[in-house]
Amino acid sequence: MAPLLSRWQFRIEWGHCDPAGVVFNSRFFEFFDWGTWTLFERALGVRPPDLAETFGIIGLPLVDSGARFRAPVRFGDVVTLTSQVNEFRFARFDVWHRLMVGEVLAVEGRETRIWATSDPADASRIKPLRVPERVVARFQAS
Amino acid sequence: MAPLLSRWQFRIEWGHCDPAGVVFNSRFFEFFDWGTWTLFERALGVRPPDLAETFGIIGLPLVDSGARFRAPVRFGDVVTLTSQVNEFRFARFDVWHRLMVGEVLAVEGRETRIWATSDPADASRIKPLRVPERVVARFQAS
Amino acid sequence: MAPLLSRWQFRIEWGHCDPAGVVFNSRFFEFFDWGTWTLFERALGVRPPDLAETFGIIGLPLVDSGARFRAPVRFGDVVTLTSQVNEFRFARFDVWHRLMVGEVLAVEGRETRIWATSDPADASRIKPLRVPERVVARFQAS
Amino acid sequence: MAPLLSRWQFRIEWGHCDPAGVVFNSRFFEFFDWGTWTLFERALGVRPPDLAETFGIIGLPLVDSGARFRAPVRFGDVVTLTSQVNEFRFARFDVWHRLMVGEVLAVEGRETRIWATSDPADASRIKPLRVPERVVARFQAS
Repeated sequence: MAPLLSRWQFRIEWGHCDPAGVVFNSRFFEFFDWGTWTLFERALGVRPPDLAETFGIIGLPLVDSGARFRAPVRFGDVVTLTSQVNEFRFARFDVWHRLMVGEVLAVEGRETRIWATSDPADASRIKPLRVPERVVARFQAS
Repeated sequence: MAPLLSRWQFRIEWGHCDPAGVVFNSRFFEFFDWGTWTLFERALGVRPPDLAETFGIIGLPLVDSGARFRAPVRFGDVVTLTSQVNEFRFARFDVWHRLMVGEVLAVEGRETRIWATSDPADASRIKPLRVPERVVARFQAS
Repeated sequence: MAPLLSRWQFRIEWGHCDPAGVVFNSRFFEFFDWGTWTLFERALGVRPPDLAETFGIIGLPLVDSGARFRAPVRFGDVVTLTSQVNEFRFARFDVWHRLMVGEVLAVEGRETRIWATSDPADASRIKPLRVPERVVARFQAS
Repeated sequence: MAPLLSRWQFRIEWGHCDPAGVVFNSRFFEFFDWGTWTLFERALGVRPPDLAETFGIIGLPLVDSGARFRAPVRFGDVVTLTSQVNEFRFARFDVWHRLMVGEVLAVEGRETRIWATSDPADASRIKPLRVPERVVARFQAS
């Protein structure tokens, strides 16, 4: 089965861009975070601020991320960000992001996140939890 | 006549918020900037990146701004930003912004901007220009 | 007596600047926030993350702010931000910020903040508290 | 020979942090960018805004980046960012960043950048250039 895809369209603003006239790189990582929340809302039907309480987790801590910048993205561009999870590996999963400007794939991103609660032995630490089957199942396109 | 109003709805993201769980104040000034571009596009029918060239200006430099924070805005809130210019004073005008969370007026903002070109005598300086009548007229609701 | 002044010097980075090559306006409000923490640490001798607990407050909620942009600030500029509180008015006070590029006053800012605890009757609301005399006294230069 | 290392110490501010009370991930990519400019200034003795003109390049476009988040970084933490280039590969090089909170390695980052000019045949495109030997040599610790 194909993974569920979320799609989010928005406009590149003046304040997203740097003196070269293109989106400053850190902004893409903001966009990826937004894409992940959008995907989880789409898959699970839970508003982002309710996700943690609904599933008894502390959130989806990010442990690793990366991006490839393939084409410039400019002020006023209307972009589409698609996000998907291909596979859950116990507590860990990758969210894949593709930012398109029209038909051009401008930026590819990846976030590795974990499904986690707080460690009962030390609240300042997080404890990974196996992603529940009923959650995993929702990330397949029907 | 009533001033033209632009309206823009968006969602408050995790990365907009600070450790108090509410939108960090500087973000509202980003939103105001976005609101101004949205208003000018609505009024003038010109895409934001084409505004400067279309009207022979260097942009709409900001010279003064302010905000009143009346109610907290939180992660996941869907907000509506309305923006309007009530009056043009030669080269100068105020853009008034109101950010609503549902029926609650959460933040009021003001930006004072100028309609400007670069100074022919010194390109590093800006030269205010009277806002053209055909521009002023477009900021009235029809 | 003169108000205590905090002074903080830093460099303007590429990502602070917009396509016009100058600092994007919302960044100055980040800088003002940093200036306020710096001033309070200097006056009270308490690290920013310890301020709330030390004084039994929830922080210094911002209720109003403003800025005047007088001269452009550019990539690579080394700037000095000075911050001071001239007067405490019961629970409320203004922090005045001046950002200098060399001898040029580039941006003036003001933040109106309150000394507040959470409302015992409704934890989602804040309750202003009179700023303690021992706190007020520390904002005078010795 | 060992690579030249730049070191930059700064404080984590309130506005860098998210509702979990830790630095929001995109901020680290801002810090990496600052680290790269700091390293190039240290190595080449050229102020960041003068780099492009001094070497006849358009800058150091970022083509790929990544980070591993190993430990939380919190409001008020004083952090040290070290940055280095281990090897130049024709026009391409990796800048390695390590962000320490005291003795703890909190975040590791990598930026892949290119030494580039604008393409004479199409100014909207960039053209990679071999990094000059005199530049490469300056990234060795003496």
